[in-house]
Amino acid sequence: MAHTTANKEKLLLRIKKIKGQLGGIEKALEDEKECFNVLQQISAVRGAIQSLMSEVLDGHIKEHLGNHVSDEQREKEIENLASLLKSYLK
Amino acid sequence: MAHTTANKEKLLLRIKKIKGQLGGIEKALEDEKECFNVLQQISAVRGAIQSLMSEVLDGHIKEHLGNHVSDEQREKEIENLASLLKSYLK
Amino acid sequence: MAHTTANKEKLLLRIKKIKGQLGGIEKALEDEKECFNVLQQISAVRGAIQSLMSEVLDGHIKEHLGNHVSDEQREKEIENLASLLKSYLK
Amino acid sequence: MAHTTANKEKLLLRIKKIKGQLGGIEKALEDEKECFNVLQQISAVRGAIQSLMSEVLDGHIKEHLGNHVSDEQREKEIENLASLLKSYLK
Repeated sequence: MAHTTANKEKLLLRIKKIKGQLGGIEKALEDEKECFNVLQQISAVRGAIQSLMSEVLDGHIKEHLGNHVSDEQREKEIENLASLLKSYLK
Repeated sequence: MAHTTANKEKLLLRIKKIKGQLGGIEKALEDEKECFNVLQQISAVRGAIQSLMSEVLDGHIKEHLGNHVSDEQREKEIENLASLLKSYLK
Repeated sequence: MAHTTANKEKLLLRIKKIKGQLGGIEKALEDEKECFNVLQQISAVRGAIQSLMSEVLDGHIKEHLGNHVSDEQREKEIENLASLLKSYLK
Repeated sequence: MAHTTANKEKLLLRIKKIKGQLGGIEKALEDEKECFNVLQQISAVRGAIQSLMSEVLDGHIKEHLGNHVSDEQREKEIENLASLLKSYLK
């Protein structure tokens, strides 16, 4: 079972929380709150997304490249991971 | 009128789109899609958030530090901006 | 006097230290040290550069947009800063 | 042979170029060039370092996690890579 399945509930909860944060930004815009307030909230969402990325990536590397994976599958996963990181770290 | 007010509808649309992308990640998790698919979607959301931050920040700098702002207000905004960037660029 | 002039010695010292770190990477490559060691050192240099950027930017915002700056100069600086951040945060 | 060995000359050249860029910043500080000029140069060095990191990481993943690596070695490399990315993406 993949790590995203094992941690499904925990990950869904984090995404729900991020959606809640975006709802807060919508409300700040609707209420015409001061711009700096909006910037702080966007900055917090960026932090939450990066932390989510870091966690799912960590599980991905440990789970999908390890010794229990078939050679064929590992080769595919290595290509995928390398290409994802190239785009993410640009 | 602040730039976040002038662009309110456009910004709300972008946030709605990002919430839609998060909904896509929720669905991928629920359907137990492969982990790499989830990573790609999180990476896309990070890109969308950073692009939103960049745009709101651009408007903020042009709008809230300019010559039409009172000295007192500008002093406050400069402190705020410097502290936000310190945390955002860490 | 600009903040980069007031802090000149301190900034020069930081850059000298980063050049030293790069020298360490050169040595690790020459000695054919293991690749992971090289990655760790590049990651440390990235951290040092980002921290330098954050500090110079902080001084720049406080120094060059404040109330003592002429309207004409501030207008130019705002354009410059907005464009720099757009490229830096991409 | 590791990819950092195979590409040694190319990587050394890139690092030499980055040291040259840092020399340019030193000169700008010595000559008390305007601060914005210094910021632009630091931003360029950050870009060069990130691009170097991305390239070495790409080679690392393809070289050190693949099917030709022993199970024991791969286990160690996976732990190392996961921990490096956790710190790099923070």
